[in-house]
Amino acid sequence: MSSTKYKKDKEIIADYETQVKEIRNQLVEQFKCLEQQSESRIQLLQDLQEFFRRKSEIELEYSRSLDKLAERFSSKIRSSREHQQFKKDQHLLSSVNCWYLVLNQTRRESRDHATLSDIYTNNVILRFAQISEDIIRLFKKSKDIGIQMHEELVKVTNELYTVMKTYHMYHTESISAESKLKDAEKQEEKQFSKSGDLNVNLLRHEDRQPRRSFVRKIEKIKEKRQAKYSENKLKCTKARNDYLLNLAATNAVVAKYYIHDVSDMIDCCDLGYHASLARTLRTYLSAEYNLETSRHEGLDIIENAVDNLDNRSDKHKIMDMHNQVFCPPMRFDYLPHMGDEVCQVSAQQPVQTELLMRYHQLQSRLTTLKIENEEVRKTLDATMQTLQDMLTVEDFDVSDAFQHSRSTESIKSVASESYMSKLNVAKRRSNQHETEMFYFSKFKEYLNGSNLIIKLQAKHDLLKQTLGEGERAECGTTRGRRNARARIQVPLLLESIGQDTRALNF
Amino acid sequence: MSSTKYKKDKEIIADYETQVKEIRNQLVEQFKCLEQQSESRIQLLQDLQEFFRRKSEIELEYSRSLDKLAERFSSKIRSSREHQQFKKDQHLLSSVNCWYLVLNQTRRESRDHATLSDIYTNNVILRFAQISEDIIRLFKKSKDIGIQMHEELVKVTNELYTVMKTYHMYHTESISAESKLKDAEKQEEKQFSKSGDLNVNLLRHEDRQPRRSFVRKIEKIKEKRQAKYSENKLKCTKARNDYLLNLAATNAVVAKYYIHDVSDMIDCCDLGYHASLARTLRTYLSAEYNLETSRHEGLDIIENAVDNLDNRSDKHKIMDMHNQVFCPPMRFDYLPHMGDEVCQVSAQQPVQTELLMRYHQLQSRLTTLKIENEEVRKTLDATMQTLQDMLTVEDFDVSDAFQHSRSTESIKSVASESYMSKLNVAKRRSNQHETEMFYFSKFKEYLNGSNLIIKLQAKHDLLKQTLGEGERAECGTTRGRRNARARIQVPLLLESIGQDTRALNF
Repeated sequence: MSSTKYKKDKEIIADYETQVKEIRNQLVEQFKCLEQQSESRIQLLQDLQEFFRRKSEIELEYSRSLDKLAERFSSKIRSSREHQQFKKDQHLLSSVNCWYLVLNQTRRESRDHATLSDIYTNNVILRFAQISEDIIRLFKKSKDIGIQMHEELVKVTNELYTVMKTYHMYHTESISAESKLKDAEKQEEKQFSKSGDLNVNLLRHEDRQPRRSFVRKIEKIKEKRQAKYSENKLKCTKARNDYLLNLAATNAVVAKYYIHDVSDMIDCCDLGYHASLARTLRTYLSAEYNLETSRHEGLDIIENAVDNLDNRSDKHKIMDMHNQVFCPPMRFDYLPHMGDEVCQVSAQQPVQTELLMRYHQLQSRLTTLKIENEEVRKTLDATMQTLQDMLTVEDFDVSDAFQHSRSTESIKSVASESYMSKLNVAKRRSNQHETEMFYFSKFKEYLNGSNLIIKLQAKHDLLKQTLGEGERAECGTTRGRRNARARIQVPLLLESIGQDTRALNF
Repeated sequence: MSSTKYKKDKEIIADYETQVKEIRNQLVEQFKCLEQQSESRIQLLQDLQEFFRRKSEIELEYSRSLDKLAERFSSKIRSSREHQQFKKDQHLLSSVNCWYLVLNQTRRESRDHATLSDIYTNNVILRFAQISEDIIRLFKKSKDIGIQMHEELVKVTNELYTVMKTYHMYHTESISAESKLKDAEKQEEKQFSKSGDLNVNLLRHEDRQPRRSFVRKIEKIKEKRQAKYSENKLKCTKARNDYLLNLAATNAVVAKYYIHDVSDMIDCCDLGYHASLARTLRTYLSAEYNLETSRHEGLDIIENAVDNLDNRSDKHKIMDMHNQVFCPPMRFDYLPHMGDEVCQVSAQQPVQTELLMRYHQLQSRLTTLKIENEEVRKTLDATMQTLQDMLTVEDFDVSDAFQHSRSTESIKSVASESYMSKLNVAKRRSNQHETEMFYFSKFKEYLNGSNLIIKLQAKHDLLKQTLGEGERAECGTTRGRRNARARIQVPLLLESIGQDTRALNF
């Protein structure tokens, strides 16, 4: 019985120690886990720093390449500009303006990527390095806190162990006192039952005195043992109470540690990590978004210039620049011969009848010609519309090529096939050339017709004026014109053959 | 007189020829100007092609560098991932997720710049080349048209020359006929005045007969000359009329050429140039805008991940991943010693008074401790708030660095000075470290306080329960718990010391 009892004691202690050991192992593992966590964060930050260091280099290379590219063509323009007449902005052709803006945009991109590179190196990377420092420092401090927490756990489990052992001891003593008390009570009982037997024989014998002292002695022992037992039982009760109170306290402290403290310790390690990481990544994002905004602004400037591509205005600029070449010459004046004082068409007899006949012939000829040429013009206009439709087809949207949601492998083929496939291009171009050929042949036809019309119309108008005026011959106007040496003006009659009047500067 | 007359004729012809020669020179210069215009366009298109060829190379280099960069870290992650436990997405930490997305964005940028490069080479450059072809073909065709126009001008000026010469000729003849007629009239007059004188002497002489035939002869000559003069005058009138009509026609044709035809010829040269250039530049813009949109989408994904950076969720993921390490242990059960059947705090006399005293002591001690610790907690919270404010300061806006309107020279200094100047950074960090130190010291204080409180509170609560229950001793519940081997639960009492309850998964 005694060995079983001792074994149970040992068992309890062993169980308790196992449980405490398990907790201690967990605590060690928790530190390891946090350390590993810190290490992988430091590794992550090192990777990020290395990444941005290299990306900074890439951005700088890209920036330099773009700058070199822009400079190459800009210097070419600067040197050629001096030879050409582009110095003045008012002579800058809309097409050339687009080219200059493409170069500007390239310089802008170059500058922006240099700025990006600078922000990576002098801002983003430094921030990552600081976060690494923070992690190391905070892990150390948090581990200090953790050690304090663990010490507390060790302390309470040790205390519990002590009070448990005390309880065991007092309980053992209490049991022992109880059994001793019970022995005494048994002996007393035995004596009482003996003395009951004895009482019958007591009157017959004189040996009553020694028995009485023996009973008293037993009584005394029993009382002593009773006192001892009560004392031990009280000690045991107090020890049990202490054990139970400490048990509650220990469980509360352990629970608090696992439910809250360990989480708080991790929070100490994390302190500011996510916020600082977010700020650093936001710096990166801010740089990237700003680069993008700047790029967008630049592209909008180019788009605006493309919207303003204007062949009419460019034509006028070119004619303006070469004013001497496109300036209409003096009109041919009537030069009367050797004091000939007649300076108008003479419509008196005998030429009057002939002129009248000629006038009517011209009139009917012109009517026919105008109808014919109007038909040619209509065909010409329709052909031009067809050409314009071909030339302004909206075939420039390449957004399909940038669809990332689809399989990325097929990107290039999409870009190439739909817009610029050789078959499509060849077909479109041959179509365009045919229409162009037809347009030019019709244009020549129309030109011949309108030239004939303009000549006949001029003669017709002069005859009409002459025949209308009859015999009134005034030279004054013609002579006055001759002295003024006027440049050719737009004759009103031109409008009558269907040509639209264009606003020309000269 | 005759030499002066001839000189005037020559002068007129010379003037006319000078005027025609000037026009012909202009026509030659106009062709030269158009040719030069075409050449500078071809040069512009060559520059554009060369520019985009080189830019395509730069974009490809950039794309490759980015891809290599992303791949370097991605392969590192792939190999390390197999060792670590990040395989499952549910364990992906929000911070690591940001890093993966930065790499994704880099790959995306790489792909987009490769697409850009591809579009430059296989679309934009081809279009520019086609425009060059168009310019050459259209210049040739337009020159054909121009030649036809010039031929017309030459034809009408030649005709004018011819009719002018005819007019001169007939006018000369008319003058000559007139003077001859006048001579005849003079002679007749002379004869008449002679015959007047003669009539006085006529009756005295017999020579009247020869004189009469002479007069008739003169009369006949005069009539002949009169007829000749009339004929020449009519011829001259007709020639003058023709000259005047042709003059009008010529001026009309020349005016038409300068006002309309030359402009039409330039239009023929320009045919589609601006439209095709616009389409090509729009292709470039479409590519650039799409690259930008894609970049923006990618950045938005990262921004979203940064918004979702979450230390609490990351903490839970880590604890979840290391479940065995953070799992609360079994609670310590009451282990009664050697068949001790008492399993509760005993509150009977003689310990009752003592326990009651102890209970009251605990109660007042706890009240004081809680007040004290609440003060520490308040300081702790305020310090944490200060730290949070430092850690979440919005210092990541770098838009100033991308301001192109200002002087571009100061860009870098702006970026470096305001955000990451050494002085600012050092000041901020030393401030942060000080606050951190204070926080940790307060946290330790608070931890000590709350550990003491939790222990005393557990004892207090157990005593309260025991003293309240009085003598009722039930072991059932405790024993039941022991068999269940329950994990530690969140004790309600923890909340009473001011700790916020956290939603933990385990």
